Amino acid sequence: MEILSPSNPRIRAAARLRERSARDETGRTLVDGGRELLRALQAGVSVETLFVCRPLIRTADAQAALEDAAATGVAILDCSEAAFAKVAFGDRAEGVVAVVRPAVQRLYDLVLPAVPLIVVTEDVEKPGNLGAILRSADGAGADALIAAAGGTDLYNPNVIRSSLGTVFSQPVMAAPAAEVRAWLEVRGVRVVAAVVDAERLYTEADLRGPVAVVLGSETSGLSETWRGEGVEAVRLPMLGVADSLNVAAATAVLLYEARRQRGL
Amino acid sequence: MEILSPSNPRIRAAARLRERSARDETGRTLVDGGRELLRALQAGVSVETLFVCRPLIRTADAQAALEDAAATGVAILDCSEAAFAKVAFGDRAEGVVAVVRPAVQRLYDLVLPAVPLIVVTEDVEKPGNLGAILRSADGAGADALIAAAGGTDLYNPNVIRSSLGTVFSQPVMAAPAAEVRAWLEVRGVRVVAAVVDAERLYTEADLRGPVAVVLGSETSGLSETWRGEGVEAVRLPMLGVADSLNVAAATAVLLYEARRQRGL
Repeated sequence: MEILSPSNPRIRAAARLRERSARDETGRTLVDGGRELLRALQAGVSVETLFVCRPLIRTADAQAALEDAAATGVAILDCSEAAFAKVAFGDRAEGVVAVVRPAVQRLYDLVLPAVPLIVVTEDVEKPGNLGAILRSADGAGADALIAAAGGTDLYNPNVIRSSLGTVFSQPVMAAPAAEVRAWLEVRGVRVVAAVVDAERLYTEADLRGPVAVVLGSETSGLSETWRGEGVEAVRLPMLGVADSLNVAAATAVLLYEARRQRGL
Repeated sequence: MEILSPSNPRIRAAARLRERSARDETGRTLVDGGRELLRALQAGVSVETLFVCRPLIRTADAQAALEDAAATGVAILDCSEAAFAKVAFGDRAEGVVAVVRPAVQRLYDLVLPAVPLIVVTEDVEKPGNLGAILRSADGAGADALIAAAGGTDLYNPNVIRSSLGTVFSQPVMAAPAAEVRAWLEVRGVRVVAAVVDAERLYTEADLRGPVAVVLGSETSGLSETWRGEGVEAVRLPMLGVADSLNVAAATAVLLYEARRQRGL
């Protein structure tokens, strides 16, 4: 059993994946935590290396992830606590950190059910918000999450973590807004966009049938792509002093209203 | 016009308010950002000192906050960029950081409308989540947010920031869970608690009338106080692989369902 030191080249290469440039270059990212790793394994994500610090494994999920990874032939590297600290993010890794290579998913490969419910986010870049949105998409049974901004970093380790690994269990992809809009039109999916000053309340919109709910960034709202003909703008009632909700909260409200209208 | 340096004692004392111990000792906290400060001023919060770095003021909100503060006689201290960086949190302060002294609100002083809608959180300590919950409470027209854990740090600067200042515009308070439960009973407020394995769906619960929706931490759920007789447990449908939503997302869904049932 090899015990790696902090200066080990594999530790250093993995630690670099905390930076976006290294993720973009290599197509790889890091998964921290037992539950997240279990979901990656269950989803068939390619797990290349698993760094383990056995004294830090205390959760059943981390133990199960280690066993599942071993069973699938992943390279398991034992680390000293110092080496592990270099590759792990704070205390959130529970003794396991994996280098994975998520499959790139493309819009035109996406297979949809007959009556899809889709979430489109535009310029939602805070990992905590994107992760929470992924959990809501998973919970509400959405069929895909599309980041309508080609450069969104869906596999940022903090997105993976705050999604609790649900980023791996559902179709997720990024594409330029105009492409997403055209694709929805071709597929016959209605576009319902959350807009602060829309006239219609979200509860008055018909969210049954093939629908994409579209949410933009809190600071700049939605781009021109999501305005005008063919887009149904809706708003959430804002009864206090602020004019918008947190974007992940607003997404959850819209998705669960769609779910309610479709029958729970 | 005095220009403070980073070693100025007032700068150092203010910077210490980033730590909870200093906030607890002094009853003061920091407000970063123009919009947040405007809302504190509008809510009549006692603003004691305003640190300003004029070259960094670029938003209309920050400019308006500075003018409003000046009009109300707040002590305004001009800072060098280095001094300001010591008291501000990253680039989120927009050139203004205020030391404020929020009034302590107590459960038994809370004046409720005839048919209140209340949010109770138990052990929700992540500032980003608490701030998003405050925005949802504000948006959905809730009448109070009660943190059912005496030690919740409602005025953490990151809560203030992620609430966009709505922590100041609504009744918020912290109290031990048993006290909150007893108080709700005395006031005739029904308790509807989000519980992962509840039988009843949240849409099947009657959320009209005097109601408190109760949400616990994602890791440990709700304490015994919120179980058993007198508590209506409800669940959100979870159609994917995960068994819960982000707590701020779940709170938004429940609050807006209550609002929908009550008439928007």
